[in-house]
Amino acid sequence: MNLKALHKISYGLYVVCSRKGDRFNGQIANTVFQVCSEPPIIAVVINRSNLTHEFITKSKVFTASILSQDTPLSFIGHFGFKSGRDIDKLEGINYKIGESQAPVVTDNTLAYLEVRVLQKVDV
Amino acid sequence: MNLKALHKISYGLYVVCSRKGDRFNGQIANTVFQVCSEPPIIAVVINRSNLTHEFITKSKVFTASILSQDTPLSFIGHFGFKSGRDIDKLEGINYKIGESQAPVVTDNTLAYLEVRVLQKVDV
Repeated sequence: MNLKALHKISYGLYVVCSRKGDRFNGQIANTVFQVCSEPPIIAVVINRSNLTHEFITKSKVFTASILSQDTPLSFIGHFGFKSGRDIDKLEGINYKIGESQAPVVTDNTLAYLEVRVLQKVDV
Repeated sequence: MNLKALHKISYGLYVVCSRKGDRFNGQIANTVFQVCSEPPIIAVVINRSNLTHEFITKSKVFTASILSQDTPLSFIGHFGFKSGRDIDKLEGINYKIGESQAPVVTDNTLAYLEVRVLQKVDV
């Protein structure tokens, strides 16, 4: 199998946010997908070395902001190529606190999901 | 949260095929996604009541044909709204046998993946 086939898989683009105590963080993710309709269950893949992974593991909640197709690359880069260990990634970004108490990024956002963790799988 | 937000998640469209002994089957799926780059690992969500789920569970291999955007609805319906318990879904369809020995649908296919099951998670 030619590994380039993997590039033909379609994804959306999302900012996944979580909290740990009074600290917030968010990151870009492309692997958000619904795995069950009733009840609605979604899955997300997060690199275990990321700060957002640590926050989700701790708080067991996250949000996923579904980004518009015309989201600027600078916005994607802000959440994709920087680490919340170095900067406060939500500074200067429009967001609100969701019912889950995790932040929901509202810039460039078509819709958002608030999620409580049911299950965690190591890959 | 408004459940309509779930409709904003982006997916591709795939025919996932597997085999059980000398029987073949395939079904439409939208939830195929890469969860690890090195080594390349993908995940797929399959309803556990589907015949394809039974075949994958038995053979531990499957293929995913990544469908073109202009795939006819009749083709999608053939793999999406019929059960391999009632008909041979690969009859009249162009396919080949992959290295995994599972069938690979080649009609309307941009690229395909051949997959060996490493892990199964009940949702």
